[in-house]
Amino acid sequence: MAVNVGVILSGCGVYDGAEIHESVLTLLHLTRAGANIRMYAPNKPQMHVINHLNGDVMPETRNVLVEAARIARGKVEDVNKAKVADLDALIFPGGFGAAKNLSDFAVKGAGATVDPDVRAIIEAMHAAKKPIGFICIAPASVGAIALRGKGVKLTIGTDADTNAAITKTGNVPENTQVDQITVDDAHNVVSTAAYMCAKDIADADAGISALVKEVLRRAAPQA
Amino acid sequence: MAVNVGVILSGCGVYDGAEIHESVLTLLHLTRAGANIRMYAPNKPQMHVINHLNGDVMPETRNVLVEAARIARGKVEDVNKAKVADLDALIFPGGFGAAKNLSDFAVKGAGATVDPDVRAIIEAMHAAKKPIGFICIAPASVGAIALRGKGVKLTIGTDADTNAAITKTGNVPENTQVDQITVDDAHNVVSTAAYMCAKDIADADAGISALVKEVLRRAAPQA
Repeated sequence: MAVNVGVILSGCGVYDGAEIHESVLTLLHLTRAGANIRMYAPNKPQMHVINHLNGDVMPETRNVLVEAARIARGKVEDVNKAKVADLDALIFPGGFGAAKNLSDFAVKGAGATVDPDVRAIIEAMHAAKKPIGFICIAPASVGAIALRGKGVKLTIGTDADTNAAITKTGNVPENTQVDQITVDDAHNVVSTAAYMCAKDIADADAGISALVKEVLRRAAPQA
Repeated sequence: MAVNVGVILSGCGVYDGAEIHESVLTLLHLTRAGANIRMYAPNKPQMHVINHLNGDVMPETRNVLVEAARIARGKVEDVNKAKVADLDALIFPGGFGAAKNLSDFAVKGAGATVDPDVRAIIEAMHAAKKPIGFICIAPASVGAIALRGKGVKLTIGTDADTNAAITKTGNVPENTQVDQITVDDAHNVVSTAAYMCAKDIADADAGISALVKEVLRRAAPQA
């Protein structure tokens, strides 16, 4: 029986949404492994819109769910539809959207709060002991905030400031190389640094491929 | 010595820009093979903006180059900067952007014209006998139009209407399965159907992986 994996997107583009390469590589590895994928994103305005050519804030408004549909080729649902009963595992690609739209970590650091619907599905998956994967900045900006005070081992690579923020949330940063993953067995949480460290897309793919494999191993129905 | 490959993007999103999965998979395979990548896109407004959640036209304007920068993580240049002397090969991912922004094939079919800067680099690469790869709809919407009347063998899979349009341009459609490529040895043109046929991202990846491999084989400095 195929495993059902939720992928939570945060827009479409590294500087204001979901990191596109990380999202696509997650979908590739899940599909190759035969998983059923359900994509979700918050139905609300992005924090802002960034011109990805020059870094400027653009004077316009975009909706996180509508932009996420670009990566999803239309097949994405409001994250308030994500139900623990429908999912065997959950994965969060990175990108600034994970720190701007899924939470306000980009502004508030360790004092951030996570979008209520995103937080609800994380808490439900965690309570059900189902595996959750966090990629890039998402271990800090989403995982550490939603699971505040639980002592979850997480990696974002080696960035000292982000590690300090994870520590402040009552979780435990672990330094890793880009092709490695951090596994918290007790909490069933897997993380990898991807573009927090990657020098190119092949580099990012190494860790993402390993994370997807480990999340699926943990989600597989027990014999 | 690394091979220099130009990748021409047409925005960011299957319905009004570059197909995101096809673009990212092209970058992945080029990077894994050690190629130097230079990305380009036209610096002009998109034909229109499509809401990828419901298919509606949105009442706003986006720039092809600025949106392409989302896929490129900022590293993309105006296509008028693409020079045959800098490039050993050229690849066009698909998506409706290749039929709306790189040409007006979506509106005019076989009677379309290609963006002048895009056409200039294709003509120069073709004249220099350097390999060009076309993915998805791009063989019909860009390749067949820019190389009108040259009898180039091209594939878009098996769609009868699109094959008829290729024939009308004086080129030669070839039916293929999604994991196959069509190679025109004399013109040094490689094509694959990708999401013109693919049922999922792993399916699309099979043909794109084969296309990138063949383009790089043809671009490699001769011993």
